[in-house]
Amino acid sequence: MTHAQANPATPELVERGGARIAWIRSRMALLAGLRGEFRRTRPFAGRRIGVSLHVEPKTAVLLEVLAEGGAEIVGTGNHGSTQDDVVAFLQSQGIGIFGRRADSLADHHANLARVLDARPDMLLDNGADLASGIVERGRAASILGGTEETTSGGDRLRGELAGKVPFPSIVINDSPLKAIGENKHAVGQSVVESFMRITNLMIPGRRFCVIGYGWCGRGIAQYLRALGGRVAIVEIDEIKALEAALDGYRVAPLADLAPWAEVFITATGRAGVLPAQAVAVMQDGAVLANSGHFPWEIDTEGLNAMTTSATDLDGTLRRLDLANGRHVILVAEGRMFNLAGVEPKGNSIESMDIGFMLQALSLERVARAEGLVGGAQPVPDDINRRIARLMMATMGAAL
Amino acid sequence: MTHAQANPATPELVERGGARIAWIRSRMALLAGLRGEFRRTRPFAGRRIGVSLHVEPKTAVLLEVLAEGGAEIVGTGNHGSTQDDVVAFLQSQGIGIFGRRADSLADHHANLARVLDARPDMLLDNGADLASGIVERGRAASILGGTEETTSGGDRLRGELAGKVPFPSIVINDSPLKAIGENKHAVGQSVVESFMRITNLMIPGRRFCVIGYGWCGRGIAQYLRALGGRVAIVEIDEIKALEAALDGYRVAPLADLAPWAEVFITATGRAGVLPAQAVAVMQDGAVLANSGHFPWEIDTEGLNAMTTSATDLDGTLRRLDLANGRHVILVAEGRMFNLAGVEPKGNSIESMDIGFMLQALSLERVARAEGLVGGAQPVPDDINRRIARLMMATMGAAL
Amino acid sequence: MTHAQANPATPELVERGGARIAWIRSRMALLAGLRGEFRRTRPFAGRRIGVSLHVEPKTAVLLEVLAEGGAEIVGTGNHGSTQDDVVAFLQSQGIGIFGRRADSLADHHANLARVLDARPDMLLDNGADLASGIVERGRAASILGGTEETTSGGDRLRGELAGKVPFPSIVINDSPLKAIGENKHAVGQSVVESFMRITNLMIPGRRFCVIGYGWCGRGIAQYLRALGGRVAIVEIDEIKALEAALDGYRVAPLADLAPWAEVFITATGRAGVLPAQAVAVMQDGAVLANSGHFPWEIDTEGLNAMTTSATDLDGTLRRLDLANGRHVILVAEGRMFNLAGVEPKGNSIESMDIGFMLQALSLERVARAEGLVGGAQPVPDDINRRIARLMMATMGAAL
Amino acid sequence: MTHAQANPATPELVERGGARIAWIRSRMALLAGLRGEFRRTRPFAGRRIGVSLHVEPKTAVLLEVLAEGGAEIVGTGNHGSTQDDVVAFLQSQGIGIFGRRADSLADHHANLARVLDARPDMLLDNGADLASGIVERGRAASILGGTEETTSGGDRLRGELAGKVPFPSIVINDSPLKAIGENKHAVGQSVVESFMRITNLMIPGRRFCVIGYGWCGRGIAQYLRALGGRVAIVEIDEIKALEAALDGYRVAPLADLAPWAEVFITATGRAGVLPAQAVAVMQDGAVLANSGHFPWEIDTEGLNAMTTSATDLDGTLRRLDLANGRHVILVAEGRMFNLAGVEPKGNSIESMDIGFMLQALSLERVARAEGLVGGAQPVPDDINRRIARLMMATMGAAL
Repeated sequence: MTHAQANPATPELVERGGARIAWIRSRMALLAGLRGEFRRTRPFAGRRIGVSLHVEPKTAVLLEVLAEGGAEIVGTGNHGSTQDDVVAFLQSQGIGIFGRRADSLADHHANLARVLDARPDMLLDNGADLASGIVERGRAASILGGTEETTSGGDRLRGELAGKVPFPSIVINDSPLKAIGENKHAVGQSVVESFMRITNLMIPGRRFCVIGYGWCGRGIAQYLRALGGRVAIVEIDEIKALEAALDGYRVAPLADLAPWAEVFITATGRAGVLPAQAVAVMQDGAVLANSGHFPWEIDTEGLNAMTTSATDLDGTLRRLDLANGRHVILVAEGRMFNLAGVEPKGNSIESMDIGFMLQALSLERVARAEGLVGGAQPVPDDINRRIARLMMATMGAAL
Repeated sequence: MTHAQANPATPELVERGGARIAWIRSRMALLAGLRGEFRRTRPFAGRRIGVSLHVEPKTAVLLEVLAEGGAEIVGTGNHGSTQDDVVAFLQSQGIGIFGRRADSLADHHANLARVLDARPDMLLDNGADLASGIVERGRAASILGGTEETTSGGDRLRGELAGKVPFPSIVINDSPLKAIGENKHAVGQSVVESFMRITNLMIPGRRFCVIGYGWCGRGIAQYLRALGGRVAIVEIDEIKALEAALDGYRVAPLADLAPWAEVFITATGRAGVLPAQAVAVMQDGAVLANSGHFPWEIDTEGLNAMTTSATDLDGTLRRLDLANGRHVILVAEGRMFNLAGVEPKGNSIESMDIGFMLQALSLERVARAEGLVGGAQPVPDDINRRIARLMMATMGAAL
Repeated sequence: MTHAQANPATPELVERGGARIAWIRSRMALLAGLRGEFRRTRPFAGRRIGVSLHVEPKTAVLLEVLAEGGAEIVGTGNHGSTQDDVVAFLQSQGIGIFGRRADSLADHHANLARVLDARPDMLLDNGADLASGIVERGRAASILGGTEETTSGGDRLRGELAGKVPFPSIVINDSPLKAIGENKHAVGQSVVESFMRITNLMIPGRRFCVIGYGWCGRGIAQYLRALGGRVAIVEIDEIKALEAALDGYRVAPLADLAPWAEVFITATGRAGVLPAQAVAVMQDGAVLANSGHFPWEIDTEGLNAMTTSATDLDGTLRRLDLANGRHVILVAEGRMFNLAGVEPKGNSIESMDIGFMLQALSLERVARAEGLVGGAQPVPDDINRRIARLMMATMGAAL
Repeated sequence: MTHAQANPATPELVERGGARIAWIRSRMALLAGLRGEFRRTRPFAGRRIGVSLHVEPKTAVLLEVLAEGGAEIVGTGNHGSTQDDVVAFLQSQGIGIFGRRADSLADHHANLARVLDARPDMLLDNGADLASGIVERGRAASILGGTEETTSGGDRLRGELAGKVPFPSIVINDSPLKAIGENKHAVGQSVVESFMRITNLMIPGRRFCVIGYGWCGRGIAQYLRALGGRVAIVEIDEIKALEAALDGYRVAPLADLAPWAEVFITATGRAGVLPAQAVAVMQDGAVLANSGHFPWEIDTEGLNAMTTSATDLDGTLRRLDLANGRHVILVAEGRMFNLAGVEPKGNSIESMDIGFMLQALSLERVARAEGLVGGAQPVPDDINRRIARLMMATMGAAL
């Protein structure tokens, strides 16, 4: 096979992947407990799970646990983010993940096709890519059910795929545990850590403009302020904007804040929320960073049109000298900067442990075919509560 | 009439009420703006609004604004909380509120009957008392619609009164603005202020046990910790308990915390959440206070059974010497202690201004009979957003 | 004697004083422990301590403990703040405090003279009033030593009285425990509590200007921000101003902040730091409050000159309509507003317990005449450390 | 010369150093201003400054500024921390710094000797190494004066070198600006950032034990708590321990906290504050990290004796399996872990900018030979205040 040839699991690569996974695995207490349980109960015995997810050390631990539960894994990573050493390690353990960091988009589609061709009977899906492929191939009836990681995948299942997906698909991201465990704290802390790690700039007394006051923006604002930053918020929704104002932040239009703030962090999910005309009135040396999933929140195209010369200060910080005689610093080319730099770690291990427990227990519920209906649906309440209790136990907390 | 005779609006009483209302009125910027608008638009011209609410200086400003909008007010206070000087002042302004602080329960029921007898065509209701009375009298068809302040009143409308209330009833407390403007900050701050005001005890380094991690408990815990307290949480719901743990609180059963904490504050709405057996193992001098609406959260009956002697230290603090040789301090006899003491103020003026805007604009919508259905329903979204924008403007914030 | 006649200790007055002191006494754990020790050791047996201090329920507990240690107390309160019921209760216990709330300045001087005439051999002094009187009378040699509560009294002892005070005088306020236990937290919390109690205004999102970033200003700013306020600082000392900026506050001249803030709180100790010209540019309804000891921080005279009419909203809030068509609210006439209103409590009981332990143990050290030199001097380090250990024990903390 | 030969400034090395310095230089606003001033005033024209300091991109900017002021620099780095690319870049600019990362201790001593042999007339010293060398060589009279970075160097000057140093030596670390700008915030934030960066562990709800409540420990505790951690303090000084308790932390002996906490961070400067017997009772998986300058705070020797096997999880995390069947994670072998890992940045650029301004302006004062005395002395007050004003201006703050 092309991919296996192209990505030979050299012993060095396997070892490197294994070492990186070891620390993560030792700190995912919830999955560790489930691993033991699945070893006994084998809920996925005889099941082939088609997988589409971000392949890195944390997700690797989830795949190990599913394999321990008897699943045959056949899967692929997201385009452009697959970590080769993790793939190598997983393959060495007999876990069927393929794809390489260097894959072209065509390669990636070929990988997805390969997963579908393997005729999985369950899905661990991401953005409904596998579900829509299954529907296209007319094989939806052969699927027992699965999980969908993202809210946008859930929207596809309820939208364009409505009525076409007879099998249950449990949407993980809508669980209250995701909001509590990941969105409320972990994302904001990861952003703040990355800001310090990448720029080495002082937070105390610095003026920050956070664009967007959803879960992510709230966490970023909270932790920047907790570290002494002066934080202002841009928000177009009245209710969220009032919440920000009552939480003690300055809330103002970007036009007012552009000349005031020193650092701008976007957290909206929307395109172009930091447009070039705002950059034009910023003070010399303003720093622009995006924390959202997509690289379109900062209008980099408009920015380039204003730029007279650009200099890479290092792999992550780029200095743009503007036609107005000032310069700005663009972090990570406008991509999600908490995954940028030499040593990005992303959300904390434990917050991901919670998310993967939701995945694993939801897949178990699908495998047992108990109490589920066809189509998109929330994580069963008893699973949320079971995980909450387990997580509290690891934290020394009790009801 | 008995009540008017019993409660003569002496000039002194009128003046005292007026003076207390003046400060409040000058600080309710949203209602002040609406007052001017209603003076022009007169949305309630020819309408008689039946009112049941807590009669004190803040609600008086709401009633003034409704009257300015052309409404004829006929209403009564809650049993036991009516402030006589406020009634006197309102009556002097031609606003038809009756009832006295000293009213017996029979008097109170007579007052309610009197409101219903006045044949209102709109309702400003509290706990669905007026709605159920109207239904009983078979006069529901004569009502244009109204508002219901409380969630529990909304529950009655959707439960025992379902199908019997053909008119629209907008449930105020379910608005996201109430959560943001009142529950998230104002209640917690009021509790913390009252703790300092009544006990004069130090917060820094003190061990607090907050029972309940709903909106109210969250605010109390947040502000006690912000002032240096060490805070532990008791919560029986797994999801909320995990949230508390991730928010950085110790979360443990009351049995573990009873010997640890120095101050216990209940905020659950449930009866008996601080039972006598927990008190039995508390340290000498533990302070017990309830912040919930009902006086049943602390098991005062069980407590009395353990008490060998009781001493009033002042009107609000009561020392109970227990059979085990220790003593505890019961604040305000287990009643909502943020409304106790010599100078209780309750939630901030501005948080109530938001709540009353919800009332006034919802009643206006009812009067205009636009876009509403029969039965309980949420505050229309455009009203929420309008108030959010107005409130932001008073705070110097903008979208 | 005139005063005793004028202030008859009626049983009612005694009882009222006793009841107010009872709660305080029960919560001063450190003094409670010392009371038992002094009962055995009687360090002041045969000593007459001349006392000048603020007479209220907390200081009463200190006096009781000194009396328990064998001291004969002969003392007087500060001018204008003496609480008659506390005097009555102390007299009923044989503790020789005199003075009345209604005393004229001449009465007050007569009271001081009376203390000196009683020929004390130790002093518990306040502002060096007793020390300077003793020096004037040429009786300094007869004094074994004493304590001085205030830093300004310490300055007098080291300044105008230098060389004239042969006896040791331990300056209490310079102890690090005062800074930690009282100035860092208690004052700021008392101010924030008083703001909420007196005005009932919302803190979240409100713009505050704190003038002065010493211990007191720092505490006020910290707790206002912790409760959601937006806080700016005025400070003329570069080092403190930079500290405020790095602590995350906006730091700007009053001229810039006067039109921005909604509430102004002075905390400098200096006269006229809130001048009339700043008030002239404030927004309508700005609130002015002073937290410093002296009533001169707000330029009330200049303010009166701008005022066209004044209205008392209640005993503590005064509305001043200005010639410029706007109005401001002056709290407590510019006096220390955390001691104003219907139910002021001042600093927490425990923070005062620490301060009084410093007094009591320093006086004991003087009585034992061990290891002290003549003139002003700091609290002996071992006393600070002993109290720190005792306080930690009451808090459940350990080294 | 041996070293220049051994460390050839290859174009690649020069370029790499230059690129890393560029970002730092562009963000040191205070030094940038001073650079322009020194270019005109040339305070060091004709002066040779002997330098001993940590050679990395931030200090490089200081050296550039001194060179711009006319100084001839002859200097060396600390043993083991010199960054070769920075040396290469500085040499390419004619700034005479030598030394390599790989230098042996003998090499390092040779470097120091070389600095002294160059007959500097001013010193930028670190730990009084240059001063003591000058005294040994009997050349103290030839030195105009200098600066000393560390408090411990100041102690040597006032101790073993007292009376032997006729020239003024300004001790930088004792400036209040260091405490405010660096110790209070920057160190704590660097530690918290490093914890997240290196371990990827969750902070919210995690139990931390911070050993030591000096400036550093206070900052660490403050920011861990601000990020949701549950923090307990070990402190042996009563006054600091009480301060920690009143700041709201659990304060307890290490013996009590060892089985409770999940992460232990030392910040005392003392040897062996985290002894093996405490490790013996820790829970499985406890994390041990040191933030102090010296690698002796964790008793690594005792730890090794308890270890049955050790595994490097990566370059920074080491798993030690203990004889008691549990394991602990040792971070960075007990060395200062905020300078460990793949991408350590250390204290923020701006906090170092303040520190280097203290250096540069103090050296200028020495060069002007104005108002200084012989021996160790604090930074002149006017320099502190000038820098405070400049820093405030960069932050948009004003007196």
